Amino acid sequence: MCASCSSSFPAPGSKTDLEEGTVLTPRFNADGLVTCVTTDAASGELLMVAHMNAESLAKTLETGEAWYWSRSRGELWHKGATSGQIQTVVEMRIDCDQDALWLKVNVAGDGGCCHTGRRSCFYRKVDTTDGKASLVQA
Amino acid sequence: MCASCSSSFPAPGSKTDLEEGTVLTPRFNADGLVTCVTTDAASGELLMVAHMNAESLAKTLETGEAWYWSRSRGELWHKGATSGQIQTVVEMRIDCDQDALWLKVNVAGDGGCCHTGRRSCFYRKVDTTDGKASLVQA
Repeated sequence: MCASCSSSFPAPGSKTDLEEGTVLTPRFNADGLVTCVTTDAASGELLMVAHMNAESLAKTLETGEAWYWSRSRGELWHKGATSGQIQTVVEMRIDCDQDALWLKVNVAGDGGCCHTGRRSCFYRKVDTTDGKASLVQA
Repeated sequence: MCASCSSSFPAPGSKTDLEEGTVLTPRFNADGLVTCVTTDAASGELLMVAHMNAESLAKTLETGEAWYWSRSRGELWHKGATSGQIQTVVEMRIDCDQDALWLKVNVAGDGGCCHTGRRSCFYRKVDTTDGKASLVQA
């Protein structure tokens, strides 16, 4: 993680500042991450859930494209840099206690998002019709 | 966390099983949690991001209502039990690597979700029009 970037954002203030304030003070967890939910700006479909550290959030704000932190690879992840599935940020929101972000994006390339080739990572429903949970294609 | 509940779900299998299988094998993190994204089933609006442990997931599947794990209170959290804002699950999805859930819900009571009184926890946009990030009411 970029040492200088960890100080890119002011430290979180009081509960009132967090919830009602106008200053972006993300509450990064012990691993330096916030959760990021990404939806399709046009359809509203949930595409993926990922994580951002201070550096990826700063780069997302600077470039207008989604940068995440890949926990599996332990590196900054410019989504679409190799696949062409660049995510252009149409709107970014933050939640009440500033530990989760919501990106509404337009996806370039073939419009996909999931590494399995699907448009969304959430391609399976949890079915409980037989009283037992199983996964079915959505 | 309910010790017996941690064995409610089979252990995650291979990458192929996780991504293409029909067995629900959530990948709980080191704290025993998966991320849960909750949207309004009718409008598609993102309402909240929370966490579930095995017990809350099992209770959600059993009851058809959203149960989370409150990290701040360290306890099982039947959403709406005190506020009346019960979330009835219309559909549950899981992501490719089974470490994130998506609930589409109908909200009872006054239809709210956020503890600040708003309908959604994501009531502020991150604005960068002046080249500096600030938060504005959405």
